[in-house]
Amino acid sequence: MSKFDLTKVPVKTGSIYPAPYDAQMSGRSSLRLGEAGGLTQFGANIVILAPGASSSLRHWHLHEDEFVMVILGECTLIEDADETQMLPGDCAAFPANTPNGHCFVNNTRSEARFLVVGTNAPREVATYCDVDLMVTMENKQAVFTHKDGSPYQAKAE
Amino acid sequence: MSKFDLTKVPVKTGSIYPAPYDAQMSGRSSLRLGEAGGLTQFGANIVILAPGASSSLRHWHLHEDEFVMVILGECTLIEDADETQMLPGDCAAFPANTPNGHCFVNNTRSEARFLVVGTNAPREVATYCDVDLMVTMENKQAVFTHKDGSPYQAKAE
Repeated sequence: MSKFDLTKVPVKTGSIYPAPYDAQMSGRSSLRLGEAGGLTQFGANIVILAPGASSSLRHWHLHEDEFVMVILGECTLIEDADETQMLPGDCAAFPANTPNGHCFVNNTRSEARFLVVGTNAPREVATYCDVDLMVTMENKQAVFTHKDGSPYQAKAE
Repeated sequence: MSKFDLTKVPVKTGSIYPAPYDAQMSGRSSLRLGEAGGLTQFGANIVILAPGASSSLRHWHLHEDEFVMVILGECTLIEDADETQMLPGDCAAFPANTPNGHCFVNNTRSEARFLVVGTNAPREVATYCDVDLMVTMENKQAVFTHKDGSPYQAKAE
């Protein structure tokens, strides 16, 4: 059967962000379902946000479409123009190459979860709107730079 | 804001299947969220199954990954080897080029809904396991054939 036993999908924690941004992701974890199920064309992850946690730095993708459905609790979607409360069943779409930075924050006292789907493009550039940081992903390698292209040196917190 | 107002997404009904298979899809409808939100790289649809309805003929995809999460009611996932009950939050993945035919049936007396995500490959071939039917999708055109490649002539029901 192709149905997942969600209790057996490994919980991924941590962040690939360079310091000090990695520490800002504490309280976030994920179940990489697409990967566990043998999918290669897009990622399908359940992101788990402890109270106070954020899904990511606010960002937008150059080459990859993204889709989100909240499945538990309440998330605040933060975008360039506004903030939106999202409850289970609520969905949002973020087309590639649309520079509207977005992230999800759990401002409640209970766990929140959402499903996020994103294309696995051969090459991807994500821009982090609120800080001087970008990342280029190629062959599963992430290279973080400043927005002028110069290498990003991780900073002590 | 990028959150959907689900009450404003058009409900798509009907089927592109040739007769007599189109009639077997009665009771199925969908909200094409990805399309409504400007996504092009994958589809993200909420499929609504009235009591007794099926999501599709049982099929598998040659080039497109597929992912499903049940969001309301109860669905029966039918595959080559077995049948599996799926409740809200349950997920399943169907990697491309894996000839395990699948479809979802609502055997309950209440509406069921699931989210389905599938890659938009430039060219796709889907094979329907239980009947002598295949479809090739190219440039958004569907060509239905028998499994020997000969044209399929829609039959009166």
